[in-house]
Amino acid sequence: MPKESDFRLVESPKPHAGAGEALVRALYLSVDPYMRPLMSGHSSYARGVQVGEVMVGGAVGVVVESNDPRIAQGDVVSAMLGWQDYAVAHARSLHHVDPQQAPVSTALYVLGVPGLTAYFGLLDICHPQPGETVVVSAAAGAVGSLVGQIARIKRCRVVGIAGSDEKVRYVCQDLGFDGGFNYRETADYESKLKELCPNGIDVYFDNVGGPVTDAVLRLINNRARVAVCGQISQYNAERPDVGPRWFGQLIVRQARVEGFLVHQFSDRYDEAYRHLSAWLHENRLRYREDIVEGLENAPRAFIGMLEGRNIGKRLVKIADVQ
Amino acid sequence: MPKESDFRLVESPKPHAGAGEALVRALYLSVDPYMRPLMSGHSSYARGVQVGEVMVGGAVGVVVESNDPRIAQGDVVSAMLGWQDYAVAHARSLHHVDPQQAPVSTALYVLGVPGLTAYFGLLDICHPQPGETVVVSAAAGAVGSLVGQIARIKRCRVVGIAGSDEKVRYVCQDLGFDGGFNYRETADYESKLKELCPNGIDVYFDNVGGPVTDAVLRLINNRARVAVCGQISQYNAERPDVGPRWFGQLIVRQARVEGFLVHQFSDRYDEAYRHLSAWLHENRLRYREDIVEGLENAPRAFIGMLEGRNIGKRLVKIADVQ
Repeated sequence: MPKESDFRLVESPKPHAGAGEALVRALYLSVDPYMRPLMSGHSSYARGVQVGEVMVGGAVGVVVESNDPRIAQGDVVSAMLGWQDYAVAHARSLHHVDPQQAPVSTALYVLGVPGLTAYFGLLDICHPQPGETVVVSAAAGAVGSLVGQIARIKRCRVVGIAGSDEKVRYVCQDLGFDGGFNYRETADYESKLKELCPNGIDVYFDNVGGPVTDAVLRLINNRARVAVCGQISQYNAERPDVGPRWFGQLIVRQARVEGFLVHQFSDRYDEAYRHLSAWLHENRLRYREDIVEGLENAPRAFIGMLEGRNIGKRLVKIADVQ
Repeated sequence: MPKESDFRLVESPKPHAGAGEALVRALYLSVDPYMRPLMSGHSSYARGVQVGEVMVGGAVGVVVESNDPRIAQGDVVSAMLGWQDYAVAHARSLHHVDPQQAPVSTALYVLGVPGLTAYFGLLDICHPQPGETVVVSAAAGAVGSLVGQIARIKRCRVVGIAGSDEKVRYVCQDLGFDGGFNYRETADYESKLKELCPNGIDVYFDNVGGPVTDAVLRLINNRARVAVCGQISQYNAERPDVGPRWFGQLIVRQARVEGFLVHQFSDRYDEAYRHLSAWLHENRLRYREDIVEGLENAPRAFIGMLEGRNIGKRLVKIADVQ
């Protein structure tokens, strides 16, 4: 588990935008589970962040200088700007955010990477059908909370697994999940899942891995589909974990397990934004934010998120929208 | 591992065909890895065989009595007839075999369940593309030997993993695989695979599971596809085995693992038979049979196959074609 002392707050002169670049003043930073494996120094799904570099992460901000005709001063944009007050970025790496459409912070949640991840991971990897049972782990998290709601929109039975009773109440009472349980207070995950999923499990959207996932896999139906989005239970492991071998079960159940990264679907982001935005405005996708104030508190916000202390999307607020 | 003493040879009166049934004289029995988990008594992909019942298995035979207009005396047929000289079966469960087209024993191999399994598992689960690297385990086995040859037909680079130097020579020299290795004489599977697959692994057709599969999974490329056909290394385990957890690697590689049973594809068997038969006649699918004579030797033939003693498809010959 990262510690606050692994991070250092460094002051340096405000940079300036070069040719084709823009200077962006951060408004909100996003802290997300995927950042943890990027810090491990071993082979991962991106180059990772090296000791001494600015910590990676998505942010939404306002343009204060631009040297590119596509971007104007005052535009609100989102991009991988890292944990800093001001960031310089190539104009082509910035995505416009429309502050009239929704609060700008949603560009880091429902209308951002977590929304796209939930949309493509559930719909394109798992193809949920009406009446099927969908289980999602880290159900109250940024991605999980959207996966469950999209599955409800697709008329599935949705069961969420989360790390506190309050989170389970949140997904069931506020987000419309059909059931859920707190894995930290449950001794026998398999019996609890059997009770909550009387018709077995057709789709599993996995954010956590480990023993929770093992219990789900024991109960999958024939032709089940598993989307592997994250493995937060494994990210702090000092050596590779072992667990039951699942290939035999995949044969018996003729089941599919597929890992994915959202950028696989980058040529279809517009389609996803259209649907996510419509569902948001119809109040079919609800969300809660858990906002920590101040860049200096970003490490604490990040570590707390890894420990599961937030309900709703954890964001770090850097400045007010002007 | 089953023992010969787990089986009993029983004599009983020759049965007679009832309405809609036929009586079939067995010519060849097939012994295959999938029969092993059927004997375990726990949940598996078919009802399984109970103590005291006739051992399950596919066979080819000749009809000696028929009470159904679709089946005539003298027809050669294949079906799940079990280990017996004579079997009664419903006419609708019998598949006609054309003795003019190919030796009737091929109905248990290239033009039978192993052929269908290789065809659909490789082509429909893995979608191999020209120039991709395909690895197959149990490469000299009935299914593996066909998977590798079909992958060559699809212009892939094919690497086989087998359990003896002779088997590796067989798949490379006789069947046209690009490379292979004997896992029983190789200490470091991963280094050997790296040497044989300089461009990584795009497709893995798994018949064995366990440490061989672990080594392959470490080397898969982005968007790799894994078909899980069998797990012969696990079938005799007295308790569930543990191994490395693979879900994190599936995310990083955006890879897919899918278990399958050939009957998923039963509405497309005609398509597969057309292709398999054409490739067989063009000599693009080669095969070798390993024939044990006599019903009384079926247990020994089966156990030897599980131990990897055969090269080519192991069959038990019961009677001569009339």
